[in-house]
Amino acid sequence: MRVLLTGAAGFIGSHLCDRLIERGLEIYAIDNLHFGTLQNLVQLTGHPAFRFENIDILNRDKLNAVFIRSRFDAVFHLAANSDIAAGNLDVNLDLNLNYLATVAVLEAMRNCGVKRFFFASTSAVFGEFEGAISENDGPLQPSSFYGASKLAAEAYISVYAHTFGITAVILRFPNVVGERVTHGAVHDFVHALKADPKRLKVLGNGHQTKPYMYVADLVDALMLAWERSAGSLSVYHAAGIGETSVREVADIVVAKFGEVDTRIEYGKRDRGWSGDVPRFTYNTARLQALGWKPRLHSTEAVRLAVDRIFSNGF
Amino acid sequence: MRVLLTGAAGFIGSHLCDRLIERGLEIYAIDNLHFGTLQNLVQLTGHPAFRFENIDILNRDKLNAVFIRSRFDAVFHLAANSDIAAGNLDVNLDLNLNYLATVAVLEAMRNCGVKRFFFASTSAVFGEFEGAISENDGPLQPSSFYGASKLAAEAYISVYAHTFGITAVILRFPNVVGERVTHGAVHDFVHALKADPKRLKVLGNGHQTKPYMYVADLVDALMLAWERSAGSLSVYHAAGIGETSVREVADIVVAKFGEVDTRIEYGKRDRGWSGDVPRFTYNTARLQALGWKPRLHSTEAVRLAVDRIFSNGF
Repeated sequence: MRVLLTGAAGFIGSHLCDRLIERGLEIYAIDNLHFGTLQNLVQLTGHPAFRFENIDILNRDKLNAVFIRSRFDAVFHLAANSDIAAGNLDVNLDLNLNYLATVAVLEAMRNCGVKRFFFASTSAVFGEFEGAISENDGPLQPSSFYGASKLAAEAYISVYAHTFGITAVILRFPNVVGERVTHGAVHDFVHALKADPKRLKVLGNGHQTKPYMYVADLVDALMLAWERSAGSLSVYHAAGIGETSVREVADIVVAKFGEVDTRIEYGKRDRGWSGDVPRFTYNTARLQALGWKPRLHSTEAVRLAVDRIFSNGF
Repeated sequence: MRVLLTGAAGFIGSHLCDRLIERGLEIYAIDNLHFGTLQNLVQLTGHPAFRFENIDILNRDKLNAVFIRSRFDAVFHLAANSDIAAGNLDVNLDLNLNYLATVAVLEAMRNCGVKRFFFASTSAVFGEFEGAISENDGPLQPSSFYGASKLAAEAYISVYAHTFGITAVILRFPNVVGERVTHGAVHDFVHALKADPKRLKVLGNGHQTKPYMYVADLVDALMLAWERSAGSLSVYHAAGIGETSVREVADIVVAKFGEVDTRIEYGKRDRGWSGDVPRFTYNTARLQALGWKPRLHSTEAVRLAVDRIFSNGF
């Protein structure tokens, strides 16, 4: 099976490349290297089933040329803006990178008869929500352009699935952590303490609470959803067990640095930035019904991620 | 109060112009006259509180000039592609006219500090659905680009409401009928029989069932939602009572023409076109909680609309 993987040089994209190569698939990996880095793919360089090309999906001519050159059996679409706070400062950032890029990929698939599609979505499609969110829950009222653009992309995927014969799997990711992570609290804290181990400034009051998932577990969930889904459009929520507050994340990272007198400075707001959702949890019963078994607790995932980031020499 | 009304020369837009002028508002009406016609606004020509300009919202410079020229208190955004079947033939049609146009209006509002927004949405955001749909129901899985683009627009409105301080009311319209209607079964059947009163060809098997609402009732519901909503984002479903099959619509229109031997030819599919939803009904409890009382049954709305279309000399 030959697949196109977009966002291949990014955090989760590069881990998915590793897994798909292990599974014996042939990968045409593309990335515009805006958020991703070739460093994430060095382990695959020269592999006969792996090919990388620096392409911007919004360059329709180049994208179409890739589709015409290779006959793909499926597309894993992970390319996206991953900086939610930056997205809220410029309406066009997420609109272009998350929404229009997805439409471009779907149109290329339709033009070339590629029938299977995977999409990396997000809890941010919901905005603020009480309780553990299921896939069929509404309303969907995003509070960030990131969430809105991913919801807009989901809406278009639904049309290609229900009306134009493409089989689509959408996995709404939780907060994912691990080696190669490029954004989020774990990443930001590690790099802030590397610059100044005596002081850690936290956006928001630190009581924001999220389910963290270790990247290898997320890739397991993704492969399971991909391989066991039936029907034209399948949507899943992925998470491990429980949730972790930003304060706990800060404490874990500070402890790892091992300085005795690091000062942690919290903000006053209950969110890190405009559009940050202070608390959310996922109901993952649908994924579990496919055979998924959550392994790590959210806080164990954070600990493991911090350990791996350190042992990789960040 | 001075308001901008987009899509002002369209079917529902022109009826809303009439109502807002009756209420004593000052209207800056814009339309690109692609689907709308100035004929729909002749009754307002020369009214001191009414001004019309032919503007395409996607011309950002012209749109911004309108916002800078007039200090609006609110925007009623009704401009949209209204031809669902045509939208499915060209991915860019609804994407531009429904989604990007809405983002352009929201950005202009944000830049000029306009704080109140009304948006005309649709049941098509849901795709196919069992039972009477409430506003908080999910999943939202549109099967037409029309529905997907309106859902994408709703997602962006949510961000402006929850994060950027705009107060928004979204009314998801049912099938609306009345004088000046430009699309849908009532319109199509009237014009088909005008061309050939002996033969009526129906898309689909005619068992598609929808709630029809008379346009004046829809405008009542819209004004009620607009005036009584609280909170940053309010979403409502509007409908009268009951629903009507396409077969009933065909029979009403045929009876009105009064030919004794009109042949009605039905298709075989359970839907009129790709992305048509064969059956839907709305739960309108939320609108009723504001004081809305449904008046006409769906089938009475169709009869009244056909009568008015005939008496207006279509």
